[in-house]
Amino acid sequence: MSAANPYIPPVADYAFLYREVFGRDIVAAASGGAITADDAIEIIAGAGEFAAEVFAPLDRPGDQIGARLENGEVHLPDGFAEAYQALVEAGWVSATAPESAGGDGLPESVGAGLGEIWNASNMAFSLCWMLGAGAIHALDAAASDELRETYLTKLVSGVWTGTMNLTEPEAGTDLGAIRTTATPREDGTYSISGQKIFITWGDHDAAENIVHLVLARTPGAPEGAKGLSLFVAPRVLVEADGSLGARNRIETVAIEDKLGIHASPTCVLSYEDATGYLVGELHGGLAGMFVMMNSARVGMGHQATGVSDRALQGAAAYAAGRLQGPVQGRPAGAPIAEHPDVRRILRSMSSQVFAMRALAVHVGDLFDRAESDEDVLRTAELFVPILKGWASEEALRVTSDGIQVYGGMGFIEETGAAQHYRDARIIPIYEGTTAIQANDLIGRKVLRDQGATVAELFAQIDSSVVALRAGGGDVAVRVADRLGRALDAARRATDALLAFGPGRDASAVSVPFLSLLGTLAGGWMHALAVVAVAAHSSPEGADAARLTDADFYAAHHLVRVHALAETVAAGEIA
Amino acid sequence: MSAANPYIPPVADYAFLYREVFGRDIVAAASGGAITADDAIEIIAGAGEFAAEVFAPLDRPGDQIGARLENGEVHLPDGFAEAYQALVEAGWVSATAPESAGGDGLPESVGAGLGEIWNASNMAFSLCWMLGAGAIHALDAAASDELRETYLTKLVSGVWTGTMNLTEPEAGTDLGAIRTTATPREDGTYSISGQKIFITWGDHDAAENIVHLVLARTPGAPEGAKGLSLFVAPRVLVEADGSLGARNRIETVAIEDKLGIHASPTCVLSYEDATGYLVGELHGGLAGMFVMMNSARVGMGHQATGVSDRALQGAAAYAAGRLQGPVQGRPAGAPIAEHPDVRRILRSMSSQVFAMRALAVHVGDLFDRAESDEDVLRTAELFVPILKGWASEEALRVTSDGIQVYGGMGFIEETGAAQHYRDARIIPIYEGTTAIQANDLIGRKVLRDQGATVAELFAQIDSSVVALRAGGGDVAVRVADRLGRALDAARRATDALLAFGPGRDASAVSVPFLSLLGTLAGGWMHALAVVAVAAHSSPEGADAARLTDADFYAAHHLVRVHALAETVAAGEIA
Repeated sequence: MSAANPYIPPVADYAFLYREVFGRDIVAAASGGAITADDAIEIIAGAGEFAAEVFAPLDRPGDQIGARLENGEVHLPDGFAEAYQALVEAGWVSATAPESAGGDGLPESVGAGLGEIWNASNMAFSLCWMLGAGAIHALDAAASDELRETYLTKLVSGVWTGTMNLTEPEAGTDLGAIRTTATPREDGTYSISGQKIFITWGDHDAAENIVHLVLARTPGAPEGAKGLSLFVAPRVLVEADGSLGARNRIETVAIEDKLGIHASPTCVLSYEDATGYLVGELHGGLAGMFVMMNSARVGMGHQATGVSDRALQGAAAYAAGRLQGPVQGRPAGAPIAEHPDVRRILRSMSSQVFAMRALAVHVGDLFDRAESDEDVLRTAELFVPILKGWASEEALRVTSDGIQVYGGMGFIEETGAAQHYRDARIIPIYEGTTAIQANDLIGRKVLRDQGATVAELFAQIDSSVVALRAGGGDVAVRVADRLGRALDAARRATDALLAFGPGRDASAVSVPFLSLLGTLAGGWMHALAVVAVAAHSSPEGADAARLTDADFYAAHHLVRVHALAETVAAGEIA
Repeated sequence: MSAANPYIPPVADYAFLYREVFGRDIVAAASGGAITADDAIEIIAGAGEFAAEVFAPLDRPGDQIGARLENGEVHLPDGFAEAYQALVEAGWVSATAPESAGGDGLPESVGAGLGEIWNASNMAFSLCWMLGAGAIHALDAAASDELRETYLTKLVSGVWTGTMNLTEPEAGTDLGAIRTTATPREDGTYSISGQKIFITWGDHDAAENIVHLVLARTPGAPEGAKGLSLFVAPRVLVEADGSLGARNRIETVAIEDKLGIHASPTCVLSYEDATGYLVGELHGGLAGMFVMMNSARVGMGHQATGVSDRALQGAAAYAAGRLQGPVQGRPAGAPIAEHPDVRRILRSMSSQVFAMRALAVHVGDLFDRAESDEDVLRTAELFVPILKGWASEEALRVTSDGIQVYGGMGFIEETGAAQHYRDARIIPIYEGTTAIQANDLIGRKVLRDQGATVAELFAQIDSSVVALRAGGGDVAVRVADRLGRALDAARRATDALLAFGPGRDASAVSVPFLSLLGTLAGGWMHALAVVAVAAHSSPEGADAARLTDADFYAAHHLVRVHALAETVAAGEIA
């Protein structure tokens, strides 16, 4: 048991999602037919196999050994550097990088599947290249040709990794308080000095260089967030011919002792007259951040899905193998998976995982279609804080449920259930806490357009309720009833929020409102699945489980919308 | 920050609970006037001071260093043995032991306060004497005079500690599968052989002897749970003159590497021809367990309250001291405690903590009055699984909220927030998982008497709704409205459960039903508090906070009853 639990990639679910749930082959639609759902499923299966073989076995030792700081250098546990090189050589880093940056430009809906798989097999390790993806987006949007050639190509191939250097001891959620300075030198470079904390994969020994993207303040810059500029500061300086030169003046002062993701080195980096290169416009740093923010936040949705599915897989396997005595009139020797409450917990977990997975694919699909359609872009952006905020909070519930299935063994570290619970706890915090997501949701996505975008979403959910009722079947009727009533409650809550006016602070109930929309969206995803199953002329093996998941989600999770709606309407209580 | 966070005992809350919330001095009523609420508050304050000074500073090092097994002996971190001796010398172990066993026999309602305080200051350490309390109850109920004299007196004084040896590798929830054997010897003692796992404080170096209570099977005993007998097996054998003799043949084979409560040694004990003494009747072992079960499960309610309050205290202190930038139009430099969502989280935590604390005191009061009133005993026993199951699950939410208040720092171990989250995760598992509590609730406490006891409880809550409405005031009206509607939903859910009949398995929704009753009971406790506050002729400083807690609990937690009622009525979905 001290080795990592095996990982089984959810290929069938992605086939169902890419081909059926959204009423068409979404991969072909997104790629203009360049690739189809069939191709995407092959990609998912290939990544799944790679992840199961290469990353999953390192998950548990990564947690137990963790990243270590010795003599100013970070060392990963044995096998990590080789596994990362295998990832790069197999071309997985460039798979989802945009074509404009030299990547393969796979659709975002396919990226959702890959993101889930990397995180499920090894959440701590996945952060290594997830952060790089953010850096790729930021450089692709704003960097000069020279910076693109020197740094972007290396990030896209994965030969070098990337980081985001935002947080400082006195500047977390509030980036405007950043104090790190960038002083122009005569040669056009900048001298960067200051301390950055919580730098994920800020140092490691799996790649020959690390490309730090750093927010800093130039002399005389405006106060607050408007005065920030974005810089590239490599761990090792790059010579004119592209070869590696001297170490930049960036030191790893400490790595944090964290609750989870022990194999992900969370670094305190000290810049002392380090060399940096301006990316994009002076004082345009925050715009650069916004470019990568959507991508990073959506990625957290993939991460929440991945760690939740891994917790489910471990718990389901344990429950199937663990035999116990007679309970409730059942004979002794039956696996605990047959006990009613264990069944309830496992079903709760699986119904949540499907909801997250489907919503992540839907959001990917929306971004795939957003370039040509501003309405779709608005809906996609509405969903970013919902996916990140809701899925990350629900991942806490799912990974906690995972421990409960194991009983006393869940509290023992060797089973691995506790690791998922510890790892998952960071997801509602980084890349913007749930409160930050919720304020983005109500401020920029709901109140600003007076609820127009969210009303369009509600109309789409309404159509699904109608389609469900037309389809018939017991489960369809029950899910339609519960989804319809949940939608009514969501509309009432939204109306209440819009009517708050200046005297009442909507941000006091923004998190419950976010949970409400996420829970509703999860129910909608199940409704789409029920409709898709109803279209099967001959039921497939997985159909019964899909219907039960939908039925269960509606009766156990979707009903929470009513409580949340009352909480939202109550407004601030202080 | 690497030292333990300070601990402030909640003396004012206990004063409010003992004197006012239940409409009379419950301490005086329970003790026949021997002691009053004033005396109890002095006891609580004294214990709180002791806990804050002696136990709280050991909480963090206990987590970091943990208990270690070296050469077959368990060693506690520095300071633990001395702290335990100080506890014994101050007489705190015997304070709550029954008078029949030679203890001071403080009322259970006062025991609730002490239990919370020990657990809040150091949850891992508290398990040492909480387990002893279970052993005291079991011996007091069934042991011979000789065993009482030799072992019970030492347990009551605390000079020796006690353990419960139930679980085996193949016998967890299902005690009937226990295989440890007890073979009678000619001298009247028994030879005990077998392996016991998950033995809390099964070995340590804080006391000179440990009294193990062991469930085992004698030759030819009936199969299953009916064939179990209870034995005393001391770590060190006791000579006829009461002095300590040779070590018993009990070995500590391993201690578990756990998610939390690292200072609490969870032992694998191997018995090989160890000497044991029969307690009570042959094959009467399970009855002995039931004697201690109520006490241990209620104790878990105290533990859940304690760790939740500690998490709240840490988060509140951090939020008050941490300054951050301008958010939502508020000026920079304000503590994050003023941000609307941080306020929401802290209020959510405090309203939950009060609900748990008040319910624990109420259950203690019910047991105090139960000896002379069978109706009260039934209600008290109805509440045991509710308090244990509900408070332990809510403690997960509260300790998770605690991390969220700290933001990124909450994920760093040095702040201590993560420790509470890790420690708390065991409470819904041990002393019977939440599913076990829920099956006890619906099977023995609700279905068996066709809902008669729970109907009496609902009638009491109804009276509180009436009293609230009569009292007036905005908060009272809102809480009365929400409590009244929640009560209606609870009645409907109970009726649905009673109507399930043989075709539907109530245990598939027993956990949601337990959550529903716990959440309702928490709202009821707040309602009683609002009524008590309304009786104040001149408002006290704490009154405003109590009203806000009640208002918040009703709008954010009590409303969940509606979702749970729909889940319960839906029945099994499989």
